[in-house]
Amino acid sequence: MTKETLKREILDKRSYLCVGLDTDITKIPVHLLKYDDPVFEFNKQIIDATQDLCVAYKPNVAFYEAYGARGWESLEKTLAYIPDNIFTIADAKRGDIGNTSRLYARAFFEQMDFDAVTVAPYMGCDSVSPFLEFQGKWVILLALTSNDGSADFQHLPMADSKGKLYEQVLEVSQQWGSNEQLMYVAGATQSSHFENIRKIVPDHFLLVPGVGAQGGSLEEVSRFGMNKDCGLLVNSTRGIIYSGTGTGFASEARKSAQEISYQMDNYLEKFL
Amino acid sequence: MTKETLKREILDKRSYLCVGLDTDITKIPVHLLKYDDPVFEFNKQIIDATQDLCVAYKPNVAFYEAYGARGWESLEKTLAYIPDNIFTIADAKRGDIGNTSRLYARAFFEQMDFDAVTVAPYMGCDSVSPFLEFQGKWVILLALTSNDGSADFQHLPMADSKGKLYEQVLEVSQQWGSNEQLMYVAGATQSSHFENIRKIVPDHFLLVPGVGAQGGSLEEVSRFGMNKDCGLLVNSTRGIIYSGTGTGFASEARKSAQEISYQMDNYLEKFL
Repeated sequence: MTKETLKREILDKRSYLCVGLDTDITKIPVHLLKYDDPVFEFNKQIIDATQDLCVAYKPNVAFYEAYGARGWESLEKTLAYIPDNIFTIADAKRGDIGNTSRLYARAFFEQMDFDAVTVAPYMGCDSVSPFLEFQGKWVILLALTSNDGSADFQHLPMADSKGKLYEQVLEVSQQWGSNEQLMYVAGATQSSHFENIRKIVPDHFLLVPGVGAQGGSLEEVSRFGMNKDCGLLVNSTRGIIYSGTGTGFASEARKSAQEISYQMDNYLEKFL
Repeated sequence: MTKETLKREILDKRSYLCVGLDTDITKIPVHLLKYDDPVFEFNKQIIDATQDLCVAYKPNVAFYEAYGARGWESLEKTLAYIPDNIFTIADAKRGDIGNTSRLYARAFFEQMDFDAVTVAPYMGCDSVSPFLEFQGKWVILLALTSNDGSADFQHLPMADSKGKLYEQVLEVSQQWGSNEQLMYVAGATQSSHFENIRKIVPDHFLLVPGVGAQGGSLEEVSRFGMNKDCGLLVNSTRGIIYSGTGTGFASEARKSAQEISYQMDNYLEKFL
C-alpha cells in the first residue's frame, strides 16, 4: 500500500487506529474453543466487528509462533481474511545478516502478503535493506519502544553530542530508504519525546504502541506526533480485543474501537 | 544443558564446532526433492554425518519460516532428530516487550525444546529476561555481529567514555543473568575485538558466526577468544552443509566438518 493510499484511508475513515491481533488462546472466550481453529475464529469476528473503524491490523507474530505449525496456519488464514484496503503489519521485530533477512522478507512479503514488517535496528543497514527491496512494502524500524527496557540502551547518550541512541537510529536509518517505505516505532509511553522525534523525522509515519494497557496518552501522541499526512498509526490491542469475555466479545471490542476512533476523529479535526 | 555438560562435551569430542542448519530448499541436492519433506531429509543426513564432530546445531529460524507452516514442521522434526547430548540453538534473534518475549520463549523452549535462543538487545532488560526464566535454558545475546552493518550502531562510541555500544551491551546485560544462562554472539569477522570482549566477559561462552564463507579466522578467534572452559562455539554453515551437491553431499559435509574439528583439536591443545 502506498503512503498516499494509507493517508486517504485515514481521512476517509477518520481514524488512524491499528488493532493489534495478539490473540492468546488462553484469553479468548471459551465458547470459541469448539471451533477447529479458535484463534482464527476469534480474529475473524474481531475483524468483522472493527474493520470500518481501523486502518491497520497488526498481529504480533510471537502469539502465533507459540503454537508452532498450527499457529502459523492461523496467522495465514487471518491475513487472508483482512480486507485489501486495510494495512497489515507483521509485528515480528526481525533483523539478521543480509541473506537471512532476505528470507524473513520473503516469509512476510511473499509467502504471506503483509504490507509491512517491524524490524530491529541493532545489526545495521544490511540487516534492514533486504526488506526495503520489495516494491510497495514497508519496513517499520524500532526506534523508541514503549517498554521500560527502552531505557537500557535506546536512551543512552552517544559521544560527540550525537544525542541518544534512538536519535542516531532515526538519523542514520533515514538514508536507507524513503519515507514511502520506512516507518518508525515510537512508543506512546514516550510521548514527551515526540516533538524531538518529529524534528528528526518530520515526514515519516510512526507506528505507536503503548496506548491503553501500557498507559500512553492518545491525546499527547496525537498533539506532538501528527504531521501533514496524519503520519500516525496508533495501536491498541488488549484495550480492544479483550474488552469482552463472553459470546458478545466482538461487539464489546467494537465499542472500544469506536471510543478510540471517536477521539481520533476529534484529534484529526484539532491537530491535522 | 548446563555449562559444565557443554564443556565436557567439547573436551570429549575435542571440538567446539556448531553446525548451522540454514537449509534452503533451492540449494539442496535435487535427488532429495522426491521426499515428502526434503528439508528434513537433508538435515537428517547432515546430522547423521556430523554429530560426532560437533557439539551444537544451530538452525536459523528464518530458513524455516520462509515456508510457513510446512517449514515450521521441518524445524520441529529436525530438532527432535538431534541427539540429546548436542546443544541446540534456535537462531531467531527475537526480542519484544515482556509478555511477547515470554511467548517467544515458550515457542522455543516449550513448544519446541531448544537449549538456547539468540536474542536482540535493543529493547533492553525486560525484553530479554523472560527467556532467562527458563531453568536450564540459555539466552545468546547479540553483542558484536559478523555483518558489515555492525558498524552502523554496534561500533558507535558512547558518551562519558563508556566505550562502544557493543561494549555497553556486554557490560549492562551481564547483570541480567549469570554466565550459566547467558552467552554472547561475537562475529569471527571481528576477531580484532576478541581480546577486548574477553576483558569485559571473561567467563561467558561466545557463539561465533562468520568463519568460512564470511571470512573470519578460526585461529584468531580461538587464540583471543578461548577461556578456561573453552568458552567458544564456532559456527560454520555454508562451508559444511553445502560442501557437496550430489548424492554424496552428506559425506562431503562430513569431510568439511572433520577438517574444522581437526583444527579445533589443535587449538584446544594450544590455547586452552
